[in-house]
Amino acid sequence: MNTENREIKVLDKGFVRLVDSMGDDSSITEAARTSYGKQTKTVRDDTGLIRYLMRMNHTSPFEFVEFKFHIKCPIFVMRQKIRHRTASVNEYSGRYSVMTDDCYIPELDRITSQSTSNNQGSTNDILENASDIQEIMKFQTEESLKEYHGFLDSGLSREIARINLPLSNYTELYWKIDLHNLFHYLKLRMDSHAQYEIRVFAEAIYELIKPIVPIACEAFEDYRINACNFSFKEMDVIRYLLMEKNIPVEDIKAIIQKLDNGLSKREITELISKLGYISG
Amino acid sequence: MNTENREIKVLDKGFVRLVDSMGDDSSITEAARTSYGKQTKTVRDDTGLIRYLMRMNHTSPFEFVEFKFHIKCPIFVMRQKIRHRTASVNEYSGRYSVMTDDCYIPELDRITSQSTSNNQGSTNDILENASDIQEIMKFQTEESLKEYHGFLDSGLSREIARINLPLSNYTELYWKIDLHNLFHYLKLRMDSHAQYEIRVFAEAIYELIKPIVPIACEAFEDYRINACNFSFKEMDVIRYLLMEKNIPVEDIKAIIQKLDNGLSKREITELISKLGYISG
Amino acid sequence: MNTENREIKVLDKGFVRLVDSMGDDSSITEAARTSYGKQTKTVRDDTGLIRYLMRMNHTSPFEFVEFKFHIKCPIFVMRQKIRHRTASVNEYSGRYSVMTDDCYIPELDRITSQSTSNNQGSTNDILENASDIQEIMKFQTEESLKEYHGFLDSGLSREIARINLPLSNYTELYWKIDLHNLFHYLKLRMDSHAQYEIRVFAEAIYELIKPIVPIACEAFEDYRINACNFSFKEMDVIRYLLMEKNIPVEDIKAIIQKLDNGLSKREITELISKLGYISG
Amino acid sequence: MNTENREIKVLDKGFVRLVDSMGDDSSITEAARTSYGKQTKTVRDDTGLIRYLMRMNHTSPFEFVEFKFHIKCPIFVMRQKIRHRTASVNEYSGRYSVMTDDCYIPELDRITSQSTSNNQGSTNDILENASDIQEIMKFQTEESLKEYHGFLDSGLSREIARINLPLSNYTELYWKIDLHNLFHYLKLRMDSHAQYEIRVFAEAIYELIKPIVPIACEAFEDYRINACNFSFKEMDVIRYLLMEKNIPVEDIKAIIQKLDNGLSKREITELISKLGYISG
Repeated sequence: MNTENREIKVLDKGFVRLVDSMGDDSSITEAARTSYGKQTKTVRDDTGLIRYLMRMNHTSPFEFVEFKFHIKCPIFVMRQKIRHRTASVNEYSGRYSVMTDDCYIPELDRITSQSTSNNQGSTNDILENASDIQEIMKFQTEESLKEYHGFLDSGLSREIARINLPLSNYTELYWKIDLHNLFHYLKLRMDSHAQYEIRVFAEAIYELIKPIVPIACEAFEDYRINACNFSFKEMDVIRYLLMEKNIPVEDIKAIIQKLDNGLSKREITELISKLGYISG
Repeated sequence: MNTENREIKVLDKGFVRLVDSMGDDSSITEAARTSYGKQTKTVRDDTGLIRYLMRMNHTSPFEFVEFKFHIKCPIFVMRQKIRHRTASVNEYSGRYSVMTDDCYIPELDRITSQSTSNNQGSTNDILENASDIQEIMKFQTEESLKEYHGFLDSGLSREIARINLPLSNYTELYWKIDLHNLFHYLKLRMDSHAQYEIRVFAEAIYELIKPIVPIACEAFEDYRINACNFSFKEMDVIRYLLMEKNIPVEDIKAIIQKLDNGLSKREITELISKLGYISG
Repeated sequence: MNTENREIKVLDKGFVRLVDSMGDDSSITEAARTSYGKQTKTVRDDTGLIRYLMRMNHTSPFEFVEFKFHIKCPIFVMRQKIRHRTASVNEYSGRYSVMTDDCYIPELDRITSQSTSNNQGSTNDILENASDIQEIMKFQTEESLKEYHGFLDSGLSREIARINLPLSNYTELYWKIDLHNLFHYLKLRMDSHAQYEIRVFAEAIYELIKPIVPIACEAFEDYRINACNFSFKEMDVIRYLLMEKNIPVEDIKAIIQKLDNGLSKREITELISKLGYISG
Repeated sequence: MNTENREIKVLDKGFVRLVDSMGDDSSITEAARTSYGKQTKTVRDDTGLIRYLMRMNHTSPFEFVEFKFHIKCPIFVMRQKIRHRTASVNEYSGRYSVMTDDCYIPELDRITSQSTSNNQGSTNDILENASDIQEIMKFQTEESLKEYHGFLDSGLSREIARINLPLSNYTELYWKIDLHNLFHYLKLRMDSHAQYEIRVFAEAIYELIKPIVPIACEAFEDYRINACNFSFKEMDVIRYLLMEKNIPVEDIKAIIQKLDNGLSKREITELISKLGYISG
């Protein structure tokens, strides 16, 4: 497949490369139709079936597409990635081999202040002394690498010499994951709350798979990425709002017609029922 | 813990028994606070933190509570249960031991017609010849068992003798699972689309864990069981509806005040933003 | 790859079909070399590296080869297969669709007596009344299917109608698994202690993958299937035996030379050390 | 259980603490007996059954014991630990909270040379300039921490400030794992090829669980830790050796009697058969 072995550069020295893949959109429906037997063969076309599976959280057919990536990323990004236990991983080993001299140095627009509203995030406000900080980071990184090579030259074991390298040091890995688990990963890591340096790797991965499973990706965006989940209490508010304002179901149908945004007949019925109207 | 070793009878001859458990609501917050460090110690009480974790899909702290059940259920229920790959299972073996004579015979109110709206479901309409069907099932089951014991008496190996037993034959298993994965299981199996015979086992399991993790269970009901997910296109409709009707944000706030259903300040802000209002 | 979509018939009405695969022997070494970096590039050829990985239980590179099968097997075989939680599964659903009329009827040479030495096994001794038993099985199976279709004709829901079908009824599934986990599965299910009906499916699977990963399969046979594990206490016996008999290390080396069975230089050193001789 | 909440200090600033556990040796046999049904109730006592399960690789009953640890370890140790995907993990987050000032400084006896025989290892030969290297490490670590706090004082986001911290920086985690998967972990990480700093954490974990599952641990040592695996080709050598030397089976039995090391009757039969003698 000519979409494979495409490589996308990420951050200052990293990349994501799609090494291999198994299956495409049609593999998802093929697996799903095994469960449903002859029932679904004629009723639904591939696009409709994939969207139905995504909407209903019938996730197992999405496990039948598999991707293999070669990734180069800073160790602190790797540490996040490895938390997803459903992938297969082979990582470069600092015990077997000498670590690379590549370290991530943030651009000035990433040397920004701590967010006060989001305990785990950063703002877009570049610090006044951002270029000083960047210089210190470069200097400190170079010092670390100099010491590292000095240690190795003294004969120190690689497994100990590496422990003072910074978390910004780049590592490499092979990473294999199925589409269901990859969507779960992407939902979390493409989110605006994810750290920028992790997000850009997730986005590169998503770019690489889109040409292979375009229908599944569109369903993923509609029903996961851009979906909204309302709790029981929140639904109370929405339903009371519509009742309080005496908004008749016809007005909702009129708005659906006006928007004409591709809701299927079945989805329209589902929506009206979710909003608290007795369907019929 | 005196909630343990409680047993709930399920169907005609089955049961669910909670054999052991590790942790409770406080184990969830204990694990979560390891991630957050000192940041959250004072800000949030246990209930607030558990609800926040559930709402934000920070699922890993829920993995730190573990349950062990002893279950007796028909083989066709077992076949469903085992699909959840995150549990540990030890099942009774028909190769080592003679299978039980217990088989599931449905009550008359389960001898109902095929649903036409739901390809995988049944209705509540009891068939006219329901008691005839029930009699045939009893007879057929008894015949199977008679042949089974006849085969064994002839000296036939257990592993072959059992293959003609019906899927309604009861089996037993030990089943161990953590709370996060159990919630995922319960969400699917307590759903109205799940087969009744599977649902009653899920409900019994839920009854047994509720006294151990009451706060987590309430959050599970509010943010998962009774929550509503709206796709991108559905959100379009809701947002346009509110705009079209010129419903001001004050009216939404008024309804929230009137309902007084326990939405936290943060949740109110989140809701108003999800409904398409610029927060501020 | 022209080895794909090959189908092997199994038992009376079943099959295993290789639908798709990702990777081959070279994918294993490619993943492994990511860990080792430049260290191994020249030292070892592919065959040597794959054998080393298998011998040392460096299993993660084997996860980078993936297979997808379409399988038709009796439900009691499926029940075993599904216990391997590391595979992806989509199974035919008796709630959505009408089950097949195909049921497994054992050949006479499988209608044998219970093993007395092995609690879970059968012997090769065909029972005197084997053909009677086979006739009863056929009759009973036909009766079950007749009742099943009668139930459906009465309008009974599929989810209830199916519960009296025998465990010998055939089902179909899509099954996806990586090579490391498949080897684990095959080691257990190709074993002589596995039930014959399960073993033949495992053997068919193995036939289908061998042309794709021949080097890995040979290593699997040498270091897993045909390997022997000795406990601490058993090793005591072997080591004392060699000492007691005053067998010098030269005699062991002479036997290795005589056998000339392909032990590498490194393996010879390892063996002599495992047998309790101080290497050097 | 008074063995819980025991804490073992590891390295210069780390620890392993057993926070909670579920089950003990008897939970293993309880789960196993569910599979075997009444067959095993009388035949075998608990110790015999646990040893049999371990020897035969019947691993699922070991999954029914669960442990929860609180661990403080350097990030490079954590990176290894997290590769075991079967555990639940909650780690301290450098995005939410300020990282600790604790960093691992190796003792002089760990500032040794690279092994030439083992590409991934170190020797016991302390380098001549070991104390110089240790001083540089201390200095470099202090510089890193000084810069880190300087960055935070400038208002830099925590998620960026941390990226230049060394891999020797300590982190904390909650770690939950079942006994089967823990044994797999311990087999790999207590091995002499594992890096010392990782091994000491594995050893501390093993110390903490031993009082809870003493019988399982003894079986683990006999059949896993101190066992020897011989490939097909190696077995050739051993079998030919015994034949070549005309060692009669009686001599083997005599040695077993002399050693009197607790091999069960069944194990003696198995051993003699593994060594190539026709049993009988």
